[in-house]
Amino acid sequence: MACTTNAFFLSLSSKPNAKLSSDFSPNSSDFFVRLNKPAKVSLRSSSYGELNPGRVALSRQSGLRGRICSKATKMMDQSVGEKSSKSPTIVEVDLGNRSYPIYIGSGLLDQHELLQKHVNGKKVLVVTNTTIAPLYLDKVVDALTKGNPNVSVENVILPDGEMYKNMDTLMKVFDKAIESRLDRRCTFVALGGGVIGDMCGFAAASFLRGVNFIQIPTTVMAQVDSSVGGKTGINHPLGKNLIGAFYQPQCVLIDTDTLETLPDRELASGLAEVIKYGLIRDAEFFEWQEKNMEKLIARDPNALAYAIKRSCENKAEVVSLDEKEGGLRATLNLGHTFGHAIETGFGYGQWLHGEAIAAGMVMAVDMSYRLGWIDSSIVKRVNDILLRAKLPTAPPETMTVEMFKSVMSVDKKVADGLLRLILLKGPLGNCVFTGEYDRKALDDTLSAFCKS
Amino acid sequence: MACTTNAFFLSLSSKPNAKLSSDFSPNSSDFFVRLNKPAKVSLRSSSYGELNPGRVALSRQSGLRGRICSKATKMMDQSVGEKSSKSPTIVEVDLGNRSYPIYIGSGLLDQHELLQKHVNGKKVLVVTNTTIAPLYLDKVVDALTKGNPNVSVENVILPDGEMYKNMDTLMKVFDKAIESRLDRRCTFVALGGGVIGDMCGFAAASFLRGVNFIQIPTTVMAQVDSSVGGKTGINHPLGKNLIGAFYQPQCVLIDTDTLETLPDRELASGLAEVIKYGLIRDAEFFEWQEKNMEKLIARDPNALAYAIKRSCENKAEVVSLDEKEGGLRATLNLGHTFGHAIETGFGYGQWLHGEAIAAGMVMAVDMSYRLGWIDSSIVKRVNDILLRAKLPTAPPETMTVEMFKSVMSVDKKVADGLLRLILLKGPLGNCVFTGEYDRKALDDTLSAFCKS
Repeated sequence: MACTTNAFFLSLSSKPNAKLSSDFSPNSSDFFVRLNKPAKVSLRSSSYGELNPGRVALSRQSGLRGRICSKATKMMDQSVGEKSSKSPTIVEVDLGNRSYPIYIGSGLLDQHELLQKHVNGKKVLVVTNTTIAPLYLDKVVDALTKGNPNVSVENVILPDGEMYKNMDTLMKVFDKAIESRLDRRCTFVALGGGVIGDMCGFAAASFLRGVNFIQIPTTVMAQVDSSVGGKTGINHPLGKNLIGAFYQPQCVLIDTDTLETLPDRELASGLAEVIKYGLIRDAEFFEWQEKNMEKLIARDPNALAYAIKRSCENKAEVVSLDEKEGGLRATLNLGHTFGHAIETGFGYGQWLHGEAIAAGMVMAVDMSYRLGWIDSSIVKRVNDILLRAKLPTAPPETMTVEMFKSVMSVDKKVADGLLRLILLKGPLGNCVFTGEYDRKALDDTLSAFCKS
Repeated sequence: MACTTNAFFLSLSSKPNAKLSSDFSPNSSDFFVRLNKPAKVSLRSSSYGELNPGRVALSRQSGLRGRICSKATKMMDQSVGEKSSKSPTIVEVDLGNRSYPIYIGSGLLDQHELLQKHVNGKKVLVVTNTTIAPLYLDKVVDALTKGNPNVSVENVILPDGEMYKNMDTLMKVFDKAIESRLDRRCTFVALGGGVIGDMCGFAAASFLRGVNFIQIPTTVMAQVDSSVGGKTGINHPLGKNLIGAFYQPQCVLIDTDTLETLPDRELASGLAEVIKYGLIRDAEFFEWQEKNMEKLIARDPNALAYAIKRSCENKAEVVSLDEKEGGLRATLNLGHTFGHAIETGFGYGQWLHGEAIAAGMVMAVDMSYRLGWIDSSIVKRVNDILLRAKLPTAPPETMTVEMFKSVMSVDKKVADGLLRLILLKGPLGNCVFTGEYDRKALDDTLSAFCKS
């Protein structure tokens, strides 16, 4: 893995005319996101149980149309990671008649009724890959069929990796579905990481113009981000996720036990998205991560379960407020425009998604600092926490300015030719999604991180 | 074209135990559709102008959530076909915040503001085919850009024919869109028949998870049916339209002048869907067709314009009531399950869609009669009008019972293994969508129309 950690500091030292703007008030031409500031959002304490005073309420309601709530038999942070057959933690994604629950907990695949109550028809197609199938396919088939003899389960096992997230692989899902005579009442189940979830979701959205689907994410990346919110799709040779649909699942089932088999590099990749939530909207969560990063890397079950839950809460709230990415939801893509360029330019599958996003976040933070929108202390904290999470803090050395610009020009956030970016602005936990920035800052950031 | 007209009468003479049920009251287990009966639907006269007393009101409102209305400067049936630069007839498809107008009239492509007001961004991709491009592409580009210098128009010209309605061809649209650096604010324009509209619509639904699109249908088939209602998709080698999305356009622009270049066989194909509306829900329209079929075949502009408008009104009302095909909308597929089997089994592109649907409708009507659900006079009238429209009234001789059964088993209307069909039941203009029928009637119909 070609990963240098020097480029970042080089870029800072070569940064001309850097100054920190003292004005953090919303600029009328920017889409300024400060939902995490208590003054902007009505936070309501949950009546469900004891709250840890050190963090935001488990149940909170925004003043806008969105709502999330977490229910659990025990509400202590430590409870969600315990391995027992207790009730799961539930984070609700509120989207009107398309709302759905995210179940989080240990041993959930042994609680068969959880899955079964979300299967409507008699036929299920489990979409998984060559890595996950030997580990969890039987368990999932059991969960779907135990005490439920009317349901028959087919499966399709795809090759593993981002480089297979394409139309050819997608067609294998359709082929299997049609050969198996699945009809509109069938349910697709995505069993795997983000690639499987995105492909299975798009297949479910398009098969017979839409069938039910369920997400069973097995990586931190999928559990904290990609399985929640209904973004589905495949890559095109010229760019990531350019073909797809917004399509919501019936439920997301996160059995934290599946992380026991996750490779270290995949674990770290998922933590990039966890760190992202802290940066864009949840400073308190970022501070918790600063205190607990070594626990996360060491797979402390309680720490992981808490990070997953808190991430899902953040994601669910944003998706509830802006399902189709009119504005707010785009902020979840901090570092992703740079990161997608790395994934596309460097070849899908060379770097994991979270690795590319980590480097991309460093570049977005660098650019935010060049624009004078954040303090240097944030720059340092971002770099430090990514290093502790064993993530890259600069793009691969083979990436050129031209490669970045070429891929970034087809980013989904381009509007009428203008590239909009998510950049940090103000105190930790605040960001903007804007096309109004000094182009020189972008050029300077690209130059600082690329050799040519 | 392998088209026999004898099988139909053969099937009738071999029909065992046929009797006409005298009970047309809704069966609780059926989905019984009788919206066209005045007693069931509140019809409201339009206040927009003079009404032809011989037909239903141009503007009518159902008692359910749907609504259609037609506005025109002149409301005489004859007005819509006149070739002049007057205001178009407008049929509104009422789908809440996704509502859109269908513009119908002569010379509409010369009224540039009609198209331009539905283009939001600065870039447009016209998707058309090798037949239509030389005839109308320049005209459409003019309509999009005249007096509108901010808009740039790209195009992609696909091969013509149902056999190209597949994933490989669809990818050419994505390739062009990405190469052209189109972003989320772009608009796709479908210029052509049903195949182009279905593919362009699915491409628009999936590109960047959804961009705007406009339908400019140039065949009777597309103008009276496929361009309205948001069904998009492509074929799979094992079945028609198995991959797709429900995705509504910004508007449908029907310039009836484009029919001047339509081949006779394509014209007849479109009339199959026109006849369908009469059979399933609009007996008065069917009777009008019985009086005017020779005018339609002779391309009398007024007759064609009226048939298009009346068909769009029927389609818009059904779509408004049941966008996602929960039940009612399925009735628009009279004859389509048999017809899709012909298209798939006989090879895409051998028969035109409407030709297969015509034979399929004859089979559905035959089966309805075998079940005792309709009078023999309806059987005869259907056969007669299809012959006058120069359409097939039996499947190709190469179709076998096994071929029908194999394709019909993957039809989108199969639910938990049960094939539901649209069948006529009661007086002319009434149908049911049901899985509750005597399997023997289906077997007998298939046997009657197939040599093996």
